[in-house]
Amino acid sequence: MYQTKIEFFYCCCMKIEKTLHSRIDKINFNHISSFGNHFSDHMFCSEFRNGEWKNSMIKPFGNIWISPISLVFHYGQAVFEGMKAYKDKNEEVFLFRPKENFKRINKSAIRLEMPTIPESIFMNGLKKLIDIDRDWIPKNYGQSLYIRPFLIAIDDGVLSAKPSNDYLFMIISTPADSYYYKDSLKIKIEEKYSRSASGGVGFTKASGNYASSFYPTKLAKEEGFDQVLWTDSSTHTLIEESGTMNVFFWLKNKLITPQANENILSGITCNSILSLAKKEGIDVQERDLRVSEIIDGLKNGVLKEAFGCGTAVVVNYFKTISYQGTDFSLPDLPEKKRISLRLKKNLLDIQHNLSEDPFGWRFRLKKFST
Amino acid sequence: MYQTKIEFFYCCCMKIEKTLHSRIDKINFNHISSFGNHFSDHMFCSEFRNGEWKNSMIKPFGNIWISPISLVFHYGQAVFEGMKAYKDKNEEVFLFRPKENFKRINKSAIRLEMPTIPESIFMNGLKKLIDIDRDWIPKNYGQSLYIRPFLIAIDDGVLSAKPSNDYLFMIISTPADSYYYKDSLKIKIEEKYSRSASGGVGFTKASGNYASSFYPTKLAKEEGFDQVLWTDSSTHTLIEESGTMNVFFWLKNKLITPQANENILSGITCNSILSLAKKEGIDVQERDLRVSEIIDGLKNGVLKEAFGCGTAVVVNYFKTISYQGTDFSLPDLPEKKRISLRLKKNLLDIQHNLSEDPFGWRFRLKKFST
Repeated sequence: MYQTKIEFFYCCCMKIEKTLHSRIDKINFNHISSFGNHFSDHMFCSEFRNGEWKNSMIKPFGNIWISPISLVFHYGQAVFEGMKAYKDKNEEVFLFRPKENFKRINKSAIRLEMPTIPESIFMNGLKKLIDIDRDWIPKNYGQSLYIRPFLIAIDDGVLSAKPSNDYLFMIISTPADSYYYKDSLKIKIEEKYSRSASGGVGFTKASGNYASSFYPTKLAKEEGFDQVLWTDSSTHTLIEESGTMNVFFWLKNKLITPQANENILSGITCNSILSLAKKEGIDVQERDLRVSEIIDGLKNGVLKEAFGCGTAVVVNYFKTISYQGTDFSLPDLPEKKRISLRLKKNLLDIQHNLSEDPFGWRFRLKKFST
Repeated sequence: MYQTKIEFFYCCCMKIEKTLHSRIDKINFNHISSFGNHFSDHMFCSEFRNGEWKNSMIKPFGNIWISPISLVFHYGQAVFEGMKAYKDKNEEVFLFRPKENFKRINKSAIRLEMPTIPESIFMNGLKKLIDIDRDWIPKNYGQSLYIRPFLIAIDDGVLSAKPSNDYLFMIISTPADSYYYKDSLKIKIEEKYSRSASGGVGFTKASGNYASSFYPTKLAKEEGFDQVLWTDSSTHTLIEESGTMNVFFWLKNKLITPQANENILSGITCNSILSLAKKEGIDVQERDLRVSEIIDGLKNGVLKEAFGCGTAVVVNYFKTISYQGTDFSLPDLPEKKRISLRLKKNLLDIQHNLSEDPFGWRFRLKKFST
């Protein structure tokens, strides 16, 4: 067990328990072996009980004491976010578009009949936690501190299938390297299994969306693919997402991404890529995208690039797309000629405070700590 | 905290910690106020780590100590079962078709890329737990001990979106009265929201299926309905389930239920009702059932009864079905003339050992305890 000391937050009644035994010397920041296996020293918790948020606190990262009738275990009320903090050369800390995550977790919460989190609790908890653990943010280009806010239903004393009355909101964080599954991906257009239904929760970051994707993904991996490219569950003719990424296609000199709808997550990285592309003068389209357009583009050589993007992965391009048993290779462009990697660099340059921030995406984190 | 004593199980290395301070005097078995708010004194736990099941134990019901990176919180790997134990007049205890629940939890686990539970762990844990807590099984007709086995992903040290390596299987139980939402239900045919997608996990008891239904159900309740009647997500022309129940329609002298498929849970109560109806010589059909057939049947007066069934509710009939803003009333039959209630009584009679058991559904629980 860690020994702790108590201090009090400067602006609101958030209790803070700081560890006296940091684990930071356990991690080699020049070689962060895998994503999400070292957690920073502290975590933020806040409880929703009897209709109100209370007991906000920061404490040493560790286990929680929770009832087996917590409804998250039984009825899946759980939503989360993924976001990042970056350092610049002067070790100033920046969060990237944190209010987008704040807005989206509440959009997810509403669809799962969970309480929304007040902006003050989300933002103050986030800022104070990352400030306390700022030494955990890696310094190198492409590295970041990955931040995981999540909201779960806990025990309200009744097991029946209904929304819980009580909830726990937490924020934890983990240092992240440039996170590639691989340099480039081989993906399979999925026509049997589905990620989401129209009228369902595909547009949310509901935990259940992920569990249901693991088995189809395993089957694809057994066939030699890295990921599936999801299509709509009704007709399997419309492109949705790939794995946990939004997708882009550079087709006939247009950059096309499936329009975010009730089946598709509105990705913050995706929206940022769209803005960066538009600013460059690229012809960008957000619209329904048919599988047949992709296959025709691959056959005719007018599909030049395809890539996925998301907070964890940033950008990852595809080298092969497989459809109904046939593998189609994408052009083997040099990295310098890839739109995907240029947009990625432009995004990382903003995140690391190496370029202008015309969209106001950087959120500078002031130092509060004593 | 409860004081405990240790004894050892007779047949396998299951550790047993019995409470010395039962809470059974806190519950009035003649008036069990609400479903799932009193839990029996003990719970069963077993862990899956490093590819094997271990640490099976029965201990006093209470909180668990779990990491915030348990993947159930983030990626929704959680499946469960609902089952019941009954007493007969001599206070002999019977489980109802427990091996069906055993098979189904593993079917759910496979689809969510979770390990299957060995039959010995499921059945020995279940039998020993219910035996120890047999005083918690109510005695009156229609009452039972509701049993909740569930399997959740825990912390395997890595947060990334992939199946967990480590899992926790638990069984808890709660005394249940005859569980009616209401005597009869007013339901709404849902055409906007969906419960499941083709190629999805609707056929499993995955926790995420329930969370996604709460918001549409809330909207229906705000309109004055008790539940929604789910239709297929692609066309909204085919009937699926209602709330957490399978559904039956007594239409043109045939008892019709939507065929269990990848969108529809294969309900154990549903299958039992089907068998009982067939045995009576009722013309039973399991097939695709169109919304239009139901609406035509309501308009023409050839739909005489409609009802939902499930482990918790047993059978609950519908008095009103609403479609596109129009409420259609079902015939106001006396209870004695209702097929739904006759089948319910036949089922309860078997469950309480008041009638023959031609299908071999009762599972007599021997007394092991000292």
